[in-house]
Amino acid sequence: MIKADMRKKMESARQKVLAAIHAHGGTTLLSTGLTGDDARLAKAAIAAGAKMVEPNHPAVALARGYKGVTNMHAAEQIRHEIPIVEMAKVTSGVRQVVGKDIYITVGIPGGFTEIMPTILTDNDFKLMSEAGADGLHIHKSDLQDLAEIVEKAHYYGLLVDAYIGRSTDLHSFGIPADTPEEVAKVAKEMEKIGVDFIGLMTGMSYEGIAAGEIPAVIKERLKSLVETVNVPTLAEGGINLNNQTAFRNTGVNILVVGTAIDDMAEEAVKAAVKSFLP
Amino acid sequence: MIKADMRKKMESARQKVLAAIHAHGGTTLLSTGLTGDDARLAKAAIAAGAKMVEPNHPAVALARGYKGVTNMHAAEQIRHEIPIVEMAKVTSGVRQVVGKDIYITVGIPGGFTEIMPTILTDNDFKLMSEAGADGLHIHKSDLQDLAEIVEKAHYYGLLVDAYIGRSTDLHSFGIPADTPEEVAKVAKEMEKIGVDFIGLMTGMSYEGIAAGEIPAVIKERLKSLVETVNVPTLAEGGINLNNQTAFRNTGVNILVVGTAIDDMAEEAVKAAVKSFLP
Repeated sequence: MIKADMRKKMESARQKVLAAIHAHGGTTLLSTGLTGDDARLAKAAIAAGAKMVEPNHPAVALARGYKGVTNMHAAEQIRHEIPIVEMAKVTSGVRQVVGKDIYITVGIPGGFTEIMPTILTDNDFKLMSEAGADGLHIHKSDLQDLAEIVEKAHYYGLLVDAYIGRSTDLHSFGIPADTPEEVAKVAKEMEKIGVDFIGLMTGMSYEGIAAGEIPAVIKERLKSLVETVNVPTLAEGGINLNNQTAFRNTGVNILVVGTAIDDMAEEAVKAAVKSFLP
Repeated sequence: MIKADMRKKMESARQKVLAAIHAHGGTTLLSTGLTGDDARLAKAAIAAGAKMVEPNHPAVALARGYKGVTNMHAAEQIRHEIPIVEMAKVTSGVRQVVGKDIYITVGIPGGFTEIMPTILTDNDFKLMSEAGADGLHIHKSDLQDLAEIVEKAHYYGLLVDAYIGRSTDLHSFGIPADTPEEVAKVAKEMEKIGVDFIGLMTGMSYEGIAAGEIPAVIKERLKSLVETVNVPTLAEGGINLNNQTAFRNTGVNILVVGTAIDDMAEEAVKAAVKSFLP
């Protein structure tokens, strides 16, 4: 009974993403971290031209100092304990501040590869949709689990961005695909089950790859993804000022950036505080 | 039965403030805004040398995008609707991240001059104390109301920083005192009822006074406060990079700075986001 309504909602959300990609010459930004969940800084990001933001549960764990976590490694271990109601509140607040034309995709407990049983109920999808989310930012690493989420998300009018990772990743953030050929194969399967935007995890986020150029292996994997699918593509992990052009040159449509922006905000805060001390 | 325990807790908290003032050559910083309530940025502020932070309910309203507010004027109108439990959660998270040696004073609904009946119960003081607050940041504008709060706060081991304003202030943030003589008189009364740290509201926060030197009238009021009381003193409102030295030269012990630091963080976020867009 709500299928057509929700198709309309999803179509409008998809247009926001396509418009953002178009406005930014083929590659736009999905701004996360501080700019995803703090309404003051989401507003600043939008004022600067961002058209997509992503609140997520590990970042909210850091924002709230939940269990004293102060880095992403630690946050990933306890992120599933952040109540989904908290994520709905964050989403609702950010939505009210950024306005209706901004695309908001949200990472929620149960939507990532969690380390404790974290079940998503129909009501959770409904809650996030009502809170103002356009989509869900999903990091499942099993195709069947992902398919179940896509079906429920669509039923409640939410698009899904989901990711491809590697079987050897320290933190599992995507469907594993270890070679460019496997990336193409998995990407096609993800497209078939209805994933709306397909991303590649670079694996660079936690592994301290040197800045600058991006490793050839990542470039090949990304190229394989971009050339295979018809839906918009994303790249996530370790994207910074030095390597963004290299990423842009792969033809990927959306750069997911959190840490690099957060680092600049934190450096600015440190400089500001120091300037008020003798 | 808990009076001696709480005296010990308060004495230890007071030592943190005295040590911060000493460490910073007589004038320290109370960092608020983003650095008061977001654990990620509170951590950055502490790393840069801040030793006192202040979460408060209007800033949390902005952080959460509560009712879509995007500026302090609007936030002040709905701040009393932020649940005290939310302020306790913020305090607890910030405490876990900054460690026990940092002084945390908290603005809570009912602790400011609210526009709706907002009653503080014994349990509210207990809650904030247990959440890890050292003190309460109080902006009552009636001496009797303030005395009641000081008594309850002390009973639950919380110190109080409270402020002097003017009868003509657009937003009422302190006990009114319009001349330097009245400032001295009111400050003595505040000291007598047990206020632990006494501040002066400059009135500059919302009124767009030009940057640079501070107006003579504020300097005289601040001088009157500093010369009158034995407890540490604060100045709040419109303190920025340009006028901080002028404030420091008045001999005031603590500069309360929120907006100036937030502005720098927001500018950094804007620059960061722009650098990821074509």
